[in-house]
Amino acid sequence: MDPCRFAYAFSVRLHDTDAAGRMFFGHLFRHAHDAYEAFMTQVGLPLERLIREGEILLPLVHAEADYQRPLCQGDRARIALAIAEIRTRSFAVAYRFETQDGTLAATAKTVHLQINRDGSPASSLSAEIRDAILPYLHEDRPQ
Amino acid sequence: MDPCRFAYAFSVRLHDTDAAGRMFFGHLFRHAHDAYEAFMTQVGLPLERLIREGEILLPLVHAEADYQRPLCQGDRARIALAIAEIRTRSFAVAYRFETQDGTLAATAKTVHLQINRDGSPASSLSAEIRDAILPYLHEDRPQ
Amino acid sequence: MDPCRFAYAFSVRLHDTDAAGRMFFGHLFRHAHDAYEAFMTQVGLPLERLIREGEILLPLVHAEADYQRPLCQGDRARIALAIAEIRTRSFAVAYRFETQDGTLAATAKTVHLQINRDGSPASSLSAEIRDAILPYLHEDRPQ
Amino acid sequence: MDPCRFAYAFSVRLHDTDAAGRMFFGHLFRHAHDAYEAFMTQVGLPLERLIREGEILLPLVHAEADYQRPLCQGDRARIALAIAEIRTRSFAVAYRFETQDGTLAATAKTVHLQINRDGSPASSLSAEIRDAILPYLHEDRPQ
Repeated sequence: MDPCRFAYAFSVRLHDTDAAGRMFFGHLFRHAHDAYEAFMTQVGLPLERLIREGEILLPLVHAEADYQRPLCQGDRARIALAIAEIRTRSFAVAYRFETQDGTLAATAKTVHLQINRDGSPASSLSAEIRDAILPYLHEDRPQ
Repeated sequence: MDPCRFAYAFSVRLHDTDAAGRMFFGHLFRHAHDAYEAFMTQVGLPLERLIREGEILLPLVHAEADYQRPLCQGDRARIALAIAEIRTRSFAVAYRFETQDGTLAATAKTVHLQINRDGSPASSLSAEIRDAILPYLHEDRPQ
Repeated sequence: MDPCRFAYAFSVRLHDTDAAGRMFFGHLFRHAHDAYEAFMTQVGLPLERLIREGEILLPLVHAEADYQRPLCQGDRARIALAIAEIRTRSFAVAYRFETQDGTLAATAKTVHLQINRDGSPASSLSAEIRDAILPYLHEDRPQ
Repeated sequence: MDPCRFAYAFSVRLHDTDAAGRMFFGHLFRHAHDAYEAFMTQVGLPLERLIREGEILLPLVHAEADYQRPLCQGDRARIALAIAEIRTRSFAVAYRFETQDGTLAATAKTVHLQINRDGSPASSLSAEIRDAILPYLHEDRPQ
């Protein structure tokens, strides 16, 4: 994989699936965020520190996913994560879910907005955030 | 509320929140789908019957949400559900999440594609589906 | 139902089930805690207030469940909640899960320990807690 | 670790925690079952095969947990899994949750009953199950 993408692997577990026999769509976002947490730790911004310090708040303001093929219990899946866009006070993270044989299962995107302690949007992304995520910026979706 | 929208109420529970003190974004989709399940039962198409019979399969092919204000434990929330679009072999459901005082907390959309048993897209939505959801069609998002 | 038990109803949703077609066992505890949150609100001790004020901390120290019959998507279930035991610094909550026709599906129990801000066990349950839950005390499990 | 225990590692993620800042108690069972699924795959009995074939059905009939210390977002945790008991038609699995520094965070137990396709208890555990789990039998809880 492109070294400028962050890789995250997981297994689809029984509780991820539903009575229709496939992963419940909403659980995809849980796995996407797991990859995002691992990514943030990797780039030196572990969420537990951000939440504890309370200086940099990055709530999600948008999330979306497109589902190409079902994921089933026992599947080993891989997420390729990249930064899709950096704007003045927000950034977008793109996720590509593949099964072990490289088949595309889904894509997803989350948008994170930096806010102040009072909940108002920050004037701009902190330099610490920008510098940490910039190496993973890809203008288009991860391939 | 507009009688042509389907209303669904829920309370934000402790397990919906995370250490940042607000609803974890991914759980919004769980509540959206709860509303969709209640809606489908209301219009005579309970999912448990569709899954058991296996004739009409409607997997989600897209989901998205925009988050305006945090939902917190103890909040009583209301979802207004409407059909946003009916296409040849798919339909879109729009959700508007409000807190008890009418404040908009989030909007969401899910797109459901009718497929055949072999996984290929159906030639068209079944008449049973179309007729059931048509009364809830609103060309734009629920207000 | 015995007026000294607290009743809570819910529907089994698609995300509650797994590929084996029944409710995933771990989700039972989510519903039990939903009932407990509703109960605590009912008796004047909403968890959101306890967590916000931080004076009374009641972490779970034990949880258990016995599963008699599967719950399936679309089932309407009912929980009868009672206080099973009040001890010096802890109390136990008992839950009885029934389907709509009165069939016993599962029983569960959770034990809540009052602790001080530093994490040590409190010398005793606060009078506010004891007084609020006492009317729901049943020495044995809810019938 | 004792080679006759099965080890499983995971990170506590944001969605595992709640507004009280610690892992929601019910999610412990999700992680315990993840470890059980990984264990069953390891011993040649992947659940996806059992569910697909439908010959060996092993629903949970009991689950319990004792919580010693909170798990928080970002914690790396380890589960040591062992078979606690093998009976005529059921077996018990014991789980010990530790943080990275070896501190005990929780213990849990699940009991799995073999049933026939009609839901009645099997006359006995299948030899395939018994032989697969026997090497992991420890009469008492994992240390």
